[in-house]
Amino acid sequence: MSLIQPFPEVDHQHAVFADGLMLDCGVQLAPLTVAYRTYGQLNAARSNAVLICHALTGDQYVAETQPLTGKGGWWANLVGPGLAVDTDRFFVICANVLGGCMGSTGPAEKRADGTPWGTDFPTITIRDMVRAQKLLVDSFGIGRLLAVIGGSMGGMQVLEWAATFPQAVFAAAPIACASHHSAQNIAFHEVGRAAIHSDPDYYAGRYWEQGRIPAQGLGVARMVAHITYLSEEALTRKFGRKLRGANAVTFLEDVFEVQSYLRYQGSSFVRRFDANSYLTITRAMDYFDLSAEHGSLAQAFAKTPTRFFVASFSSDWLFPTSESRALVRAMNAAAARVSFVEIKSDKGHDAFLLDEPEFHAALGGFVAGAAKALGV
Amino acid sequence: MSLIQPFPEVDHQHAVFADGLMLDCGVQLAPLTVAYRTYGQLNAARSNAVLICHALTGDQYVAETQPLTGKGGWWANLVGPGLAVDTDRFFVICANVLGGCMGSTGPAEKRADGTPWGTDFPTITIRDMVRAQKLLVDSFGIGRLLAVIGGSMGGMQVLEWAATFPQAVFAAAPIACASHHSAQNIAFHEVGRAAIHSDPDYYAGRYWEQGRIPAQGLGVARMVAHITYLSEEALTRKFGRKLRGANAVTFLEDVFEVQSYLRYQGSSFVRRFDANSYLTITRAMDYFDLSAEHGSLAQAFAKTPTRFFVASFSSDWLFPTSESRALVRAMNAAAARVSFVEIKSDKGHDAFLLDEPEFHAALGGFVAGAAKALGV
Repeated sequence: MSLIQPFPEVDHQHAVFADGLMLDCGVQLAPLTVAYRTYGQLNAARSNAVLICHALTGDQYVAETQPLTGKGGWWANLVGPGLAVDTDRFFVICANVLGGCMGSTGPAEKRADGTPWGTDFPTITIRDMVRAQKLLVDSFGIGRLLAVIGGSMGGMQVLEWAATFPQAVFAAAPIACASHHSAQNIAFHEVGRAAIHSDPDYYAGRYWEQGRIPAQGLGVARMVAHITYLSEEALTRKFGRKLRGANAVTFLEDVFEVQSYLRYQGSSFVRRFDANSYLTITRAMDYFDLSAEHGSLAQAFAKTPTRFFVASFSSDWLFPTSESRALVRAMNAAAARVSFVEIKSDKGHDAFLLDEPEFHAALGGFVAGAAKALGV
Repeated sequence: MSLIQPFPEVDHQHAVFADGLMLDCGVQLAPLTVAYRTYGQLNAARSNAVLICHALTGDQYVAETQPLTGKGGWWANLVGPGLAVDTDRFFVICANVLGGCMGSTGPAEKRADGTPWGTDFPTITIRDMVRAQKLLVDSFGIGRLLAVIGGSMGGMQVLEWAATFPQAVFAAAPIACASHHSAQNIAFHEVGRAAIHSDPDYYAGRYWEQGRIPAQGLGVARMVAHITYLSEEALTRKFGRKLRGANAVTFLEDVFEVQSYLRYQGSSFVRRFDANSYLTITRAMDYFDLSAEHGSLAQAFAKTPTRFFVASFSSDWLFPTSESRALVRAMNAAAARVSFVEIKSDKGHDAFLLDEPEFHAALGGFVAGAAKALGV
């Protein structure tokens, strides 16, 4: 094991809410910090705000360079001037989720006594994440969001926004997600958590005391998760059985390109993500179950004024189209206004982040239609 | 980490071949021990022998209690008196694979100097496993096997038997397998290997020196593999989002039954399987590629006299039906006699081990037909 220092602290733009938040687990979390970025201008009527919700390992740098990795924004192909979510027209907000590690209150953040929360950080839910975002949105004086948009865990937040604050969401676009985490979803998360827990550098969650991070365990967690983000077709097209600098299997330890690719995914991830944050957020995803919260899925959207755009990707096996269809059926049962599209793609779950022109056009049309309906 | 002793040594029935075997990697492995079990009686003509090939974590105890676990044979529902592979009629042989840890030569076995092979054990291939089995079959004076049958990695061995020793295989039944390991298959194996390598108790592969085994890493490897053996439907039916002794999510660490089930799978596995053996065998599976070996898949079966029975399971996403169809197409192109069945099952890859009456009936019919053709 190499000795790796925790990743550097960055001064993220943030808002602090002194009274904090009452969490679903019964803990009052105060003060509460929400790190965020905005793009574009809020209009005088405050009616052009679009909230983007990020996925498990995403962050608030949706449309600009991420300060730790130096890479471009994770949805820079969708959010920006003239793009589907047009920052020349809309005021776009993206906040680091509660429990995250890019400046919002979470396990990696320091408490009053100067030590990180670590495993003392309370259990959180997707609804807690949404409540934290609501505080931020309120602080801008925005009574109703034009749209809330997100994919994967971001899509879960979108659903929770619509279910919890229906009057505050004019249009909602849950992408590549589901109303609950399935047994298989939970199982894959459990493998990742087991890998982190089994790393002795995890040090019962107090790894900062050692000046090390559980890089091996977190790396393995990322590797297994990464496989679930890709389709079999995508892996085959990208790598197939391609060998590293050899024409035949030469019986080296790492002979296949897919092996070194995965290992790279693991090792680069640990430089930008906190292990306790990973544990906290994956658990929040596992707990997510809109039906259980509301008695039934249709009840979650009963009498909703929100219009919905649901999208899935044909080769996504982590959140398959059947889950999106179940959402649409429940929205229909609640007499909600909903459009649905399954995008043909062989790129798997990751497709929601990639260049998928049909998806971008459909989502752009939905947002433009919502803006038109509101006279924005 | 708990201190766990290596699992106890068992005196497995075995044959020793002093001259050993020339491996695909160019190493002469001698002497070679092949541990095996037999069931039923070899007839005078030596024409009623059926070889069963086991999967990655299987062993030679196909139809009787496994000495370490005390559990019944892994194919006891298929192999036995009056069953599809009828031990009242056939002489059934099952050998622990080369590289395994149930008595055949492998990383856990001791060398002449009394130390285990460990990571010094040479790289092996599926073909090497088959060559070792051929030595055993020859030692019985059996010139031609009535049938070779196996699922998953066992099916890979069946294909390799037919391709390498066509005159020695009258009938072959590759079940729930493929002609090669896909990028996704390799990727999942790589996660398991990374988990083992990252366990400090792996101790660079010399864990016996510490009196410990890399239980955490091997456990995580088993957990992720186990998910791939089950279908999403099977996991959902078995566990769904069922909670452990609670009516609602109570924000405990392990709230879902699927979590404790997976952890149990991991912890029980390490008591019966060797980590270096797991690394060795998963690599052999990754190397497997019949087309690359023979130029094309049809070429692998060119002019084969063997009759084939190919079976897949509809919800198997590790070795999907499309892979079995590709096998059948290649066999057809080689003018081989082949029958194919896709069994409707929602149990995933594991279905080949479970009570699937339609599968058992079809395989039993195939074996009986082969026996009739040979006048057995």
